[in-house]
Amino acid sequence: MIMMRNMPHIPIPDELTGIRGLMAFRPETAAPLNLLVDALLRAPNSLTSGERELIATYVSSENDCFYCQTIHGAIAANDLGGDEPLVLKVKENFQEAEISDKLKALLNIAGKVQRGGKHVTDEDVARARQQGATDTEIHDTVLIAAAFCMFNRYVDGLATVASKDPEFYRTRAQHICANGYSGVNKEFQASRKP
Amino acid sequence: MIMMRNMPHIPIPDELTGIRGLMAFRPETAAPLNLLVDALLRAPNSLTSGERELIATYVSSENDCFYCQTIHGAIAANDLGGDEPLVLKVKENFQEAEISDKLKALLNIAGKVQRGGKHVTDEDVARARQQGATDTEIHDTVLIAAAFCMFNRYVDGLATVASKDPEFYRTRAQHICANGYSGVNKEFQASRKP
Repeated sequence: MIMMRNMPHIPIPDELTGIRGLMAFRPETAAPLNLLVDALLRAPNSLTSGERELIATYVSSENDCFYCQTIHGAIAANDLGGDEPLVLKVKENFQEAEISDKLKALLNIAGKVQRGGKHVTDEDVARARQQGATDTEIHDTVLIAAAFCMFNRYVDGLATVASKDPEFYRTRAQHICANGYSGVNKEFQASRKP
Repeated sequence: MIMMRNMPHIPIPDELTGIRGLMAFRPETAAPLNLLVDALLRAPNSLTSGERELIATYVSSENDCFYCQTIHGAIAANDLGGDEPLVLKVKENFQEAEISDKLKALLNIAGKVQRGGKHVTDEDVARARQQGATDTEIHDTVLIAAAFCMFNRYVDGLATVASKDPEFYRTRAQHICANGYSGVNKEFQASRKP
Protein backbone atom coordinates (compact mmCIF):
# COMPACT_ATOMS: atom_id res chain seq x y z
CA MET A 1 0.00 0.00 0.00
CA ILE A 2 1.42 3.36 -0.99
CA MET A 3 0.78 6.23 1.45
CA MET A 4 0.27 9.34 -0.65
CA ARG A 5 -0.82 11.57 2.22
CA ASN A 6 1.50 13.09 4.78
CA MET A 7 4.47 13.29 2.47
CA PRO A 8 6.98 16.05 3.18
CA HIS A 9 7.69 18.56 0.37
CA ILE A 10 11.39 17.60 0.34
CA PRO A 11 13.07 14.21 0.85
CA ILE A 12 13.57 13.51 4.57
CA PRO A 13 14.53 10.21 6.26
CA ASP A 14 11.31 8.53 7.52
CA GLU A 15 12.70 8.01 11.01
CA LEU A 16 13.37 11.73 11.59
CA THR A 17 9.96 13.29 12.28
CA GLY A 18 9.07 16.94 12.76
CA ILE A 19 11.88 19.49 12.65
CA ARG A 20 14.57 16.80 13.08
CA GLY A 21 14.41 15.71 9.43
CA LEU A 22 14.76 19.34 8.31
CA MET A 23 17.79 19.77 10.55
CA ALA A 24 19.40 16.65 9.09
CA PHE A 25 18.63 17.94 5.57
CA ARG A 26 20.25 21.34 6.20
CA PRO A 27 22.83 21.26 9.04
CA GLU A 28 24.05 24.75 8.03
CA THR A 29 20.81 26.30 9.31
CA ALA A 30 20.20 23.65 12.01
CA ALA A 31 23.23 24.83 13.98
CA PRO A 32 22.13 28.47 14.53
CA LEU A 33 18.48 27.38 15.03
CA ASN A 34 19.53 25.07 17.87
CA LEU A 35 21.78 27.75 19.40
CA LEU A 36 18.89 30.24 19.25
CA VAL A 37 16.32 28.00 20.91
CA ASP A 38 18.86 26.92 23.51
CA ALA A 39 19.61 30.56 24.39
CA LEU A 40 15.89 31.30 24.60
CA LEU A 41 14.53 28.23 26.40
CA ARG A 42 17.33 26.45 28.29
CA ALA A 43 20.05 29.01 29.16
CA PRO A 44 20.05 30.52 32.67
CA ASN A 45 17.20 33.03 32.99
CA SER A 46 14.97 34.59 35.65
CA LEU A 47 12.09 32.78 33.90
CA THR A 48 12.31 29.03 34.51
CA SER A 49 12.75 26.72 31.53
CA GLY A 50 9.28 25.37 32.32
CA GLU A 51 7.78 28.87 32.00
CA ARG A 52 9.63 29.54 28.74
CA GLU A 53 8.66 26.15 27.29
CA LEU A 54 5.02 26.94 28.20
CA ILE A 55 5.26 30.16 26.15
CA ALA A 56 6.68 28.17 23.21
CA THR A 57 3.95 25.52 23.60
CA TYR A 58 1.15 28.09 23.77
CA VAL A 59 2.31 29.93 20.64
CA SER A 60 2.73 26.63 18.76
CA SER A 61 -0.78 25.66 19.79
CA GLU A 62 -2.16 29.00 18.56
CA ASN A 63 -0.35 28.33 15.25
CA ASP A 64 -1.88 24.81 15.21
CA CYS A 65 1.53 23.15 14.80
CA PHE A 66 1.08 19.60 16.15
CA TYR A 67 4.75 18.64 16.31
CA CYS A 68 6.00 21.82 18.06
CA GLN A 69 3.17 22.07 20.59
CA THR A 70 3.55 18.37 21.45
CA ILE A 71 7.33 18.24 21.85
CA HIS A 72 7.57 21.57 23.70
CA GLY A 73 4.50 20.64 25.76
CA ALA A 74 6.28 17.41 26.76
CA ILE A 75 9.44 19.35 27.63
CA ALA A 76 7.43 21.89 29.67
CA ALA A 77 5.68 19.06 31.51
CA ASN A 78 9.03 17.39 32.22
CA ASP A 79 10.40 20.70 33.54
CA LEU A 80 7.28 21.08 35.71
CA GLY A 81 7.59 17.70 37.42
CA GLY A 82 5.48 15.82 34.91
CA ASP A 83 2.41 18.09 35.09
CA GLU A 84 0.85 17.32 31.69
CA PRO A 85 -2.65 18.56 32.74
CA LEU A 86 -1.21 22.03 33.45
CA VAL A 87 0.29 22.17 29.93
CA LEU A 88 -3.09 21.26 28.41
CA LYS A 89 -4.82 23.91 30.55
CA VAL A 90 -2.37 26.61 29.40
CA LYS A 91 -3.12 25.72 25.76
CA GLU A 92 -6.90 25.70 26.36
CA ASN A 93 -7.27 28.78 28.58
CA PHE A 94 -4.15 30.07 30.30
CA GLN A 95 -6.10 32.74 32.23
CA GLU A 96 -7.65 29.96 34.32
CA ALA A 97 -4.47 27.88 34.65
CA GLU A 98 -2.57 27.57 37.94
CA ILE A 99 0.34 29.76 36.88
CA SER A 100 1.59 33.12 38.16
CA ASP A 101 -0.07 36.39 37.16
CA LYS A 102 3.28 37.41 35.68
CA LEU A 103 3.31 34.39 33.37
CA LYS A 104 -0.30 35.12 32.39
CA ALA A 105 0.70 38.67 31.43
CA LEU A 106 3.64 37.32 29.42
CA LEU A 107 1.45 34.73 27.68
CA ASN A 108 -0.92 37.57 26.74
CA ILE A 109 2.01 39.36 25.07
CA ALA A 110 3.09 36.12 23.35
CA GLY A 111 -0.42 35.66 21.96
CA LYS A 112 -0.34 39.19 20.53
CA VAL A 113 3.04 38.53 18.89
CA GLN A 114 1.63 35.34 17.36
CA ARG A 115 -1.03 37.43 15.59
CA GLY A 116 1.53 40.07 14.57
CA GLY A 117 4.10 42.28 16.31
CA LYS A 118 1.99 45.43 16.11
CA HIS A 119 -0.75 43.88 18.25
CA VAL A 120 1.42 44.31 21.38
CA THR A 121 0.29 47.49 23.15
CA ASP A 122 1.89 49.73 25.77
CA GLU A 123 -0.87 48.50 28.10
CA ASP A 124 0.06 44.83 27.55
CA VAL A 125 3.66 45.62 28.51
CA ALA A 126 2.64 47.82 31.47
CA ARG A 127 0.48 44.99 32.84
CA ALA A 128 3.43 42.57 32.65
CA ARG A 129 5.64 45.09 34.48
CA GLN A 130 2.99 45.52 37.19
CA GLN A 131 3.27 41.76 37.76
CA GLY A 132 7.04 42.08 38.12
CA ALA A 133 8.26 41.25 34.61
CA THR A 134 11.72 42.64 33.81
CA ASP A 135 12.91 44.16 30.52
CA THR A 136 14.75 40.95 29.68
CA GLU A 137 11.71 38.82 30.45
CA ILE A 138 9.56 41.01 28.18
CA HIS A 139 12.24 40.88 25.45
CA ASP A 140 12.60 37.11 25.73
CA THR A 141 8.84 36.54 25.70
CA VAL A 142 8.50 38.51 22.46
CA LEU A 143 11.45 36.70 20.85
CA ILE A 144 10.29 33.23 22.01
CA ALA A 145 6.84 33.92 20.54
CA ALA A 146 8.37 35.29 17.32
CA ALA A 147 10.80 32.36 17.04
CA PHE A 148 7.97 29.85 17.33
CA CYS A 149 6.10 31.67 14.56
CA MET A 150 9.22 30.72 12.56
CA PHE A 151 9.63 27.13 13.81
CA ASN A 152 5.92 26.36 13.35
CA ARG A 153 5.93 27.68 9.75
CA TYR A 154 9.17 25.81 9.02
CA VAL A 155 7.78 22.47 10.25
CA ASP A 156 4.35 22.81 8.60
CA GLY A 157 5.48 24.74 5.49
CA LEU A 158 7.55 21.73 4.44
CA ALA A 159 4.77 19.32 5.43
CA THR A 160 6.86 17.26 7.83
CA VAL A 161 5.30 14.18 9.41
CA ALA A 162 4.85 14.01 13.21
CA SER A 163 4.72 10.94 15.43
CA LYS A 164 1.35 10.37 17.14
CA ASP A 165 2.93 8.40 20.01
CA PRO A 166 2.97 10.44 23.28
CA GLU A 167 5.78 8.19 24.56
CA PHE A 168 8.06 9.38 21.75
CA TYR A 169 7.68 12.99 22.93
CA ARG A 170 8.16 12.10 26.62
CA THR A 171 11.40 10.26 25.86
CA ARG A 172 12.68 13.03 23.59
CA ALA A 173 11.75 15.64 26.23
CA GLN A 174 13.91 13.92 28.83
CA HIS A 175 16.80 13.96 26.37
CA ILE A 176 16.40 17.69 25.65
CA CYS A 177 16.05 18.57 29.34
CA ALA A 178 19.27 16.67 30.06
CA ASN A 179 21.34 17.87 27.09
CA GLY A 180 19.76 21.12 25.83
CA TYR A 181 19.01 21.97 22.21
CA SER A 182 22.59 22.82 21.32
CA GLY A 183 23.31 19.16 22.17
CA VAL A 184 21.33 18.35 19.02
CA ASN A 185 24.15 19.93 16.99
CA LYS A 186 26.53 17.41 18.53
CA GLU A 187 24.16 14.58 17.53
CA PHE A 188 24.35 15.76 13.89
CA GLN A 189 28.11 16.01 14.03
CA ALA A 190 28.33 12.49 15.47
CA SER A 191 25.93 11.09 12.85
CA ARG A 192 28.07 12.50 10.05
CA LYS A 193 31.31 10.88 11.22
CA PRO A 194 32.48 8.15 8.83
CA MET B 1 8.71 68.74 23.63
CA ILE B 2 8.38 65.18 24.86
CA MET B 3 7.78 62.59 22.15
CA MET B 4 5.48 60.00 23.68
CA ARG B 5 4.88 58.08 20.47
CA ASN B 6 7.31 55.64 18.90
CA MET B 7 8.85 54.56 22.14
CA PRO B 8 10.24 51.00 22.26
CA HIS B 9 8.82 48.66 24.93
CA ILE B 10 12.29 48.11 26.44
CA PRO B 11 15.18 50.58 26.87
CA ILE B 12 17.28 50.75 23.68
CA PRO B 13 19.98 53.28 22.74
CA ASP B 14 18.40 55.95 20.49
CA GLU B 15 21.10 55.62 17.84
CA LEU B 16 20.47 51.90 17.28
CA THR B 17 17.27 51.71 15.23
CA GLY B 18 15.30 48.64 14.15
CA ILE B 19 16.67 45.25 15.13
CA ARG B 20 20.11 46.66 15.97
CA GLY B 21 19.01 48.01 19.34
CA LEU B 22 17.49 44.63 20.24
CA MET B 23 20.74 42.91 19.29
CA ALA B 24 22.72 45.28 21.50
CA PHE B 25 20.24 44.68 24.35
CA ARG B 26 20.57 40.87 24.11
CA PRO B 27 23.85 39.74 22.50
CA GLU B 28 23.18 36.13 23.60
CA THR B 29 20.35 35.85 21.08
CA ALA B 30 21.86 38.29 18.56
CA ALA B 31 24.72 35.90 17.79
CA PRO B 32 22.61 32.92 16.60
CA LEU B 33 20.15 35.28 14.84
CA ASN B 34 22.99 36.79 12.80
CA LEU B 35 24.45 33.34 12.04
CA LEU B 36 21.02 32.16 10.88
CA VAL B 37 20.34 35.07 8.56
CA ASP B 38 23.87 34.90 7.20
CA ALA B 39 23.45 31.17 6.39
CA LEU B 40 20.11 31.90 4.72
CA LEU B 41 20.83 35.09 2.79
CA ARG B 42 24.59 35.51 2.25
CA ALA B 43 26.24 32.06 2.29
CA PRO B 44 27.00 30.41 -1.08
CA ASN B 45 23.77 29.15 -2.65
CA SER B 46 22.30 28.36 -6.08
CA LEU B 47 19.88 31.24 -5.41
CA THR B 48 21.73 34.56 -5.59
CA SER B 49 21.84 36.76 -2.49
CA GLY B 50 19.74 39.25 -4.45
CA GLU B 51 17.01 36.63 -4.99
CA ARG B 52 17.08 35.56 -1.34
CA GLU B 53 17.00 39.18 -0.11
CA LEU B 54 13.97 39.75 -2.40
CA ILE B 55 12.17 36.86 -0.68
CA ALA B 56 13.01 38.38 2.74
CA THR B 57 11.86 41.82 1.54
CA TYR B 58 8.59 40.50 0.11
CA VAL B 59 7.67 38.62 3.32
CA SER B 60 8.58 41.64 5.46
CA SER B 61 6.37 43.79 3.24
CA GLU B 62 3.46 41.34 3.60
CA ASN B 63 3.99 41.52 7.39
CA ASP B 64 4.02 45.34 7.12
CA CYS B 65 7.38 45.62 8.93
CA PHE B 66 8.85 48.94 7.79
CA TYR B 67 12.38 48.42 9.11
CA CYS B 68 12.88 44.90 7.73
CA GLN B 69 11.37 45.54 4.31
CA THR B 70 13.41 48.73 3.94
CA ILE B 71 16.81 47.39 5.01
CA HIS B 72 16.45 44.09 3.13
CA GLY B 73 14.99 45.95 0.14
CA ALA B 74 18.10 48.17 0.15
CA ILE B 75 20.37 45.12 0.41
CA ALA B 76 18.48 43.38 -2.43
CA ALA B 77 18.78 46.51 -4.59
CA ASN B 78 22.50 46.72 -3.81
CA ASP B 79 22.91 43.04 -4.78
CA LEU B 80 20.95 43.69 -7.99
CA GLY B 81 23.14 46.56 -9.20
CA GLY B 82 21.12 49.31 -7.54
CA ASP B 83 17.74 48.36 -9.05
CA GLU B 84 15.43 49.94 -6.45
CA PRO B 85 12.41 50.04 -8.85
CA LEU B 86 12.59 46.23 -9.23
CA VAL B 87 12.45 45.81 -5.45
CA LEU B 88 9.37 48.05 -5.25
CA LYS B 89 7.72 46.10 -8.07
CA VAL B 90 8.31 42.77 -6.30
CA LYS B 91 6.64 44.16 -3.17
CA GLU B 92 3.68 45.57 -5.16
CA ASN B 93 3.06 42.68 -7.57
CA PHE B 94 5.86 40.16 -8.06
CA GLN B 95 3.93 38.30 -10.80
CA GLU B 96 4.49 41.29 -13.10
CA ALA B 97 8.09 41.98 -12.04
CA GLU B 98 11.03 41.27 -14.33
CA ILE B 99 12.25 38.24 -12.40
CA SER B 100 12.53 34.57 -13.36
CA ASP B 101 9.51 32.26 -13.34
CA LYS B 102 11.39 30.17 -10.78
CA LEU B 103 11.68 33.12 -8.40
CA LYS B 104 7.97 33.90 -8.92
CA ALA B 105 7.11 30.31 -7.94
CA LEU B 106 9.33 30.59 -4.85
CA LEU B 107 7.80 33.97 -3.89
CA ASN B 108 4.37 32.32 -4.15
CA ILE B 109 5.53 29.69 -1.62
CA ALA B 110 7.01 32.41 0.62
CA GLY B 111 3.70 34.27 0.59
CA LYS B 112 1.87 31.10 1.66
CA VAL B 113 4.35 30.55 4.52
CA GLN B 114 3.80 34.16 5.64
CA ARG B 115 0.08 33.37 6.08
CA GLY B 116 0.87 30.04 7.79
CA GLY B 117 2.85 26.90 7.01
CA LYS B 118 -0.19 24.80 6.15
CA HIS B 119 -1.10 27.11 3.26
CA VAL B 120 1.75 25.65 1.15
CA THR B 121 0.26 23.00 -1.16
CA ASP B 122 1.78 20.12 -3.13
CA GLU B 123 0.81 22.11 -6.24
CA ASP B 124 2.76 25.19 -5.09
CA VAL B 125 5.86 23.03 -4.65
CA ALA B 126 5.31 21.14 -7.94
CA ARG B 127 5.08 24.46 -9.83
CA ALA B 128 8.41 25.59 -8.33
CA ARG B 129 10.01 22.29 -9.34
CA GLN B 130 8.65 22.67 -12.90
CA GLN B 131 10.52 25.99 -13.02
CA GLY B 132 13.73 24.25 -11.94
CA ALA B 133 13.73 24.83 -8.18
CA THR B 134 15.82 22.29 -6.24
CA ASP B 135 14.98 20.69 -2.88
CA THR B 136 17.44 23.02 -1.15
CA GLU B 137 15.96 26.09 -2.85
CA ILE B 138 12.46 25.06 -1.74
CA HIS B 139 13.73 24.38 1.79
CA ASP B 140 15.57 27.68 1.97
CA THR B 141 12.59 29.65 0.61
CA VAL B 142 10.33 28.22 3.33
CA LEU B 143 12.89 28.89 6.07
CA ILE B 144 13.67 32.43 4.83
CA ALA B 145 9.94 33.23 4.81
CA ALA B 146 9.48 31.63 8.25
CA ALA B 147 12.54 33.44 9.66
CA PHE B 148 11.23 36.82 8.54
CA CYS B 149 7.90 36.04 10.23
CA MET B 150 10.12 35.91 13.33
CA PHE B 151 12.30 38.96 12.62
CA ASN B 152 9.28 41.11 11.68
CA ARG B 153 7.43 40.17 14.89
CA TYR B 154 10.59 40.74 16.96
CA VAL B 155 11.16 44.23 15.55
CA ASP B 156 7.51 45.34 15.74
CA GLY B 157 6.55 43.38 18.87
CA LEU B 158 9.04 45.45 20.88
CA ALA B 159 7.99 48.67 19.09
CA THR B 160 11.44 49.57 17.83
CA VAL B 161 11.90 52.88 16.01
CA ALA B 162 13.02 52.92 12.36
CA SER B 163 14.92 55.62 10.50
CA LYS B 164 12.96 57.29 7.69
CA ASP B 165 16.13 58.27 5.79
CA PRO B 166 16.64 56.12 2.64
CA GLU B 167 20.34 57.03 2.70
CA PHE B 168 20.76 55.30 6.07
CA TYR B 169 19.52 52.03 4.57
CA ARG B 170 21.63 52.37 1.40
CA THR B 171 24.79 52.89 3.48
CA ARG B 172 23.97 50.04 5.86
CA ALA B 173 23.18 47.79 2.86
CA GLN B 174 26.66 48.34 1.41
CA HIS B 175 28.15 47.41 4.76
CA ILE B 176 26.12 44.17 5.01
CA CYS B 177 26.89 43.22 1.39
CA ALA B 178 30.60 43.69 2.10
CA ASN B 179 30.76 42.02 5.54
CA GLY B 180 27.72 39.73 5.84
CA TYR B 181 25.37 39.50 8.82
CA SER B 182 27.75 37.44 10.93
CA GLY B 183 30.07 40.45 10.73
CA VAL B 184 27.51 42.22 12.92
CA ASN B 185 28.52 39.84 15.75
CA LYS B 186 32.06 41.16 15.43
CA GLU B 187 30.73 44.75 15.66
CA PHE B 188 29.08 43.88 18.98
CA GLN B 189 32.22 42.21 20.27
CA ALA B 190 34.26 45.27 19.28
CA SER B 191 31.77 47.68 20.88
CA ARG B 192 31.97 45.80 24.19
CA LYS B 193 35.76 46.02 24.48
CA PRO B 194 36.82 48.33 27.32
